[in-house]
Amino acid sequence: MNKSMVRFLLSKLLLIEAALLIVPLIVALIYQEKLATIFSLLGTMAILLFIGSMGIIVKPKNRHIYTKEGLLIVALCWVLWSFFGALPFVFTGQIPSIIDAFFEVSSGFTTTGATILPDVSVLSHSLLFWRSFTHLIGGMGVLVFALAIMENSKNSHLEVMRAEVPGPVFGKVVSKLKDTAQILYIIYLAMFTIFAFILWVAGMPFYDSLVTAMGTAGTGGFTVFNDSIAHYHSSLITNLVALGMLAFGVNFNLYYLLLIRKFKSFFGDEELRVYIGIVLVSTLLIWLNVGGLFNTAAKGLEISFFQVATVITTTGFGITNLTVWPLFSQFILLLLMFIGGSAGSTAGGFKVMRSLILSKIAKNQVLSNLYPNRVMSLHINHQPLDKRIQHSVLKYLTIYLAIFIGLVFILTLDSNKFLVVFSAAASAFNNIGPMLGTDKTFAIFSPFSKLVLSFAMIAGRLEIYPMLLLFIPKTWSKI
Amino acid sequence: MNKSMVRFLLSKLLLIEAALLIVPLIVALIYQEKLATIFSLLGTMAILLFIGSMGIIVKPKNRHIYTKEGLLIVALCWVLWSFFGALPFVFTGQIPSIIDAFFEVSSGFTTTGATILPDVSVLSHSLLFWRSFTHLIGGMGVLVFALAIMENSKNSHLEVMRAEVPGPVFGKVVSKLKDTAQILYIIYLAMFTIFAFILWVAGMPFYDSLVTAMGTAGTGGFTVFNDSIAHYHSSLITNLVALGMLAFGVNFNLYYLLLIRKFKSFFGDEELRVYIGIVLVSTLLIWLNVGGLFNTAAKGLEISFFQVATVITTTGFGITNLTVWPLFSQFILLLLMFIGGSAGSTAGGFKVMRSLILSKIAKNQVLSNLYPNRVMSLHINHQPLDKRIQHSVLKYLTIYLAIFIGLVFILTLDSNKFLVVFSAAASAFNNIGPMLGTDKTFAIFSPFSKLVLSFAMIAGRLEIYPMLLLFIPKTWSKI
Repeated sequence: MNKSMVRFLLSKLLLIEAALLIVPLIVALIYQEKLATIFSLLGTMAILLFIGSMGIIVKPKNRHIYTKEGLLIVALCWVLWSFFGALPFVFTGQIPSIIDAFFEVSSGFTTTGATILPDVSVLSHSLLFWRSFTHLIGGMGVLVFALAIMENSKNSHLEVMRAEVPGPVFGKVVSKLKDTAQILYIIYLAMFTIFAFILWVAGMPFYDSLVTAMGTAGTGGFTVFNDSIAHYHSSLITNLVALGMLAFGVNFNLYYLLLIRKFKSFFGDEELRVYIGIVLVSTLLIWLNVGGLFNTAAKGLEISFFQVATVITTTGFGITNLTVWPLFSQFILLLLMFIGGSAGSTAGGFKVMRSLILSKIAKNQVLSNLYPNRVMSLHINHQPLDKRIQHSVLKYLTIYLAIFIGLVFILTLDSNKFLVVFSAAASAFNNIGPMLGTDKTFAIFSPFSKLVLSFAMIAGRLEIYPMLLLFIPKTWSKI
Repeated sequence: MNKSMVRFLLSKLLLIEAALLIVPLIVALIYQEKLATIFSLLGTMAILLFIGSMGIIVKPKNRHIYTKEGLLIVALCWVLWSFFGALPFVFTGQIPSIIDAFFEVSSGFTTTGATILPDVSVLSHSLLFWRSFTHLIGGMGVLVFALAIMENSKNSHLEVMRAEVPGPVFGKVVSKLKDTAQILYIIYLAMFTIFAFILWVAGMPFYDSLVTAMGTAGTGGFTVFNDSIAHYHSSLITNLVALGMLAFGVNFNLYYLLLIRKFKSFFGDEELRVYIGIVLVSTLLIWLNVGGLFNTAAKGLEISFFQVATVITTTGFGITNLTVWPLFSQFILLLLMFIGGSAGSTAGGFKVMRSLILSKIAKNQVLSNLYPNRVMSLHINHQPLDKRIQHSVLKYLTIYLAIFIGLVFILTLDSNKFLVVFSAAASAFNNIGPMLGTDKTFAIFSPFSKLVLSFAMIAGRLEIYPMLLLFIPKTWSKI
């Protein structure tokens, strides 16, 4: 374990967070907020600058890091960023409890969008903006890390990337990994900017369009109002946001293919087709099931489509009261929570790609049991899929289920409603946000559960392994 | 596909069912039941004898069968036995609907014990006995088939055994498979007889002791009264039944080890230790959680222990009203539903052995991701476990989950309570019996759902693959 590199890089990352806090500070100044708020932000920045500077004074002699260091840095960074990012909320008293604030900010960085605030109007413009800004950072935050680490270390770039990029498949768009990261980041920020502009043109106030676009781009879910997107009472905005969320749930590598005019590869992509297929079928089933709850068929379709988009992309924007929906539709949403978005997108969940691989494995397994003499092969995008990848997906499922069951277990101590508990665990772990079966927020859970859920959100975001490292005693005994 | 062997063996199996119906007929004669009941039984026997005799007139020239024929015979046998076994209930009008009766009898043969009867007192002594007798047959029914097929065909014995013996591990106790089957069957019937005797000595009426022992031996769950074991208001009986259920949830191969005095192998068996460990820990957790609901601590322990035993062995006897239990305890029971009993026992579920293998795979996967250079191996009972078995368990999990999700989907159309729907699917598929979250029976579901659940019970009992064969069009196109 290269301790000094871990310390050095984490310190650098804390300095980056201090720099990022300039954004909410500017918002506070624009809205001429209370001095207490401005000082809370400045105070947090001072703390980050102090600790960060202390940590980089001594430069590491050995700059080599390996998988373990990479994973540890990533995991600790998310925990530390969430902790320090929570301080302004505590200092201003807008979220007095540090556990609540930690929950809220890790929910932000992980692009979950789960909240403990029954009423978001307690937040000032600057802190509400910061809360949503964490979505934008977290959405492709992976690349911030990757770039930061690549600049500062001499090897193992790929390992760190692997640890953090969502999904089992992360193709290199161009030969150099660093260039790939930059290209993807530019695409991401360009899409965000265009989308914010579109929302503004569609009638949203400027501030709202930025906040909503950050929630959409990161597939996060935080918004300006308690009633989320429903607040705007605009079918145009509803549909735009639904399409926007779906766009950010697509593997970003595919957008690069679009840019270099490889249209055939784009439209032929199997994961994309399955993703669109799931969205269409789910929308149709839900529309048929809940259509009667709305005044017009068109309204029913609009809401069904939005709801499917917000859940499968793991965004979690609200549009309607789900507690009155029949269980059939709620169960579809619950399944979509688990499936999640595409690999290599900003979305969370188990990922369409993994679900696709699992369904192909299951089909082959059935057939090979019934017809033992047949030879089965498994293809994705016309390429044979390595057995090792197949097995790693199967094993990932096992670990994923084990952690999920553990989460439900802990939450059953706080609530007696199975749907609430089950969906809360699914929602946090898959980085969606809202729960099913209740119109309450995560405030219903105990401080202990909130802490566990915070770690679960980070674990879900980092695809489990880096977070597990934090809970293995050996990690700490060797330091 | 050797059509004539399939026809020939299924016909033989129908003749066996006709013979088995003699038992309830005797009960009907003893209790001097209505002529209608006696004629219903005789009528069913006549139908079975007629169809069975027709089917064996022409002897197959080619007596070779392979995996596919074996699986098809097994799957069809369970469906046909359930269908014809349901006829007496329909003929007498005790269960007027054929779908309900089919559900009830497949629930019996699969040793599920789920019922659509809100009040079992509508059943006559003979038919209530027949209902429970199907548990005894189904519990080790596997061996009836295996023996029947072995007597009549010339190869592929192992294939059929593999298709039907619960659990991934079925060791050959002695060198000849047929002898193994006979030994296990003798152990099974001896244990049943002893247990019925013990219950009778403990104060149960003779009829009740037989019915209860059949429900226990097959880990089925049907009893004489609506309030199941609670009816006897006897701590002695409650504890005896709990221990009895646990005994039948153990791999029967281990009892052979006891008989030949290999005590070390018995007590050292890893699956047995994990099984007992799960029972103890679950009992303790539930006792701590629900203890306050009972007058004395001892009563709380008794009920907690019974409830854990009845669920993990997938028996499903009732002892208390679970709807008032906190979700924490209900969720433990729900998990136990999925884990199920040991491989090679009469219990259903995913099996302790598979759960054990999965947890070892998960642990290894985590460690190998965090420490890529380490070599991991997986042992069960100090023997390395073949990679192929590991992968087949992982694939089984995938298929198992896919079917389970499909079941929940269908049931959400009938009920809006997630816990009810989720536990009903788990209960049927894992062959337990009762649901959680309601004190109603399966009568709440639509005829379509009941039919689906009947097939799910059989699929769960046969560990999925044979039943899937029935739903693949190719199976039928080639006949």
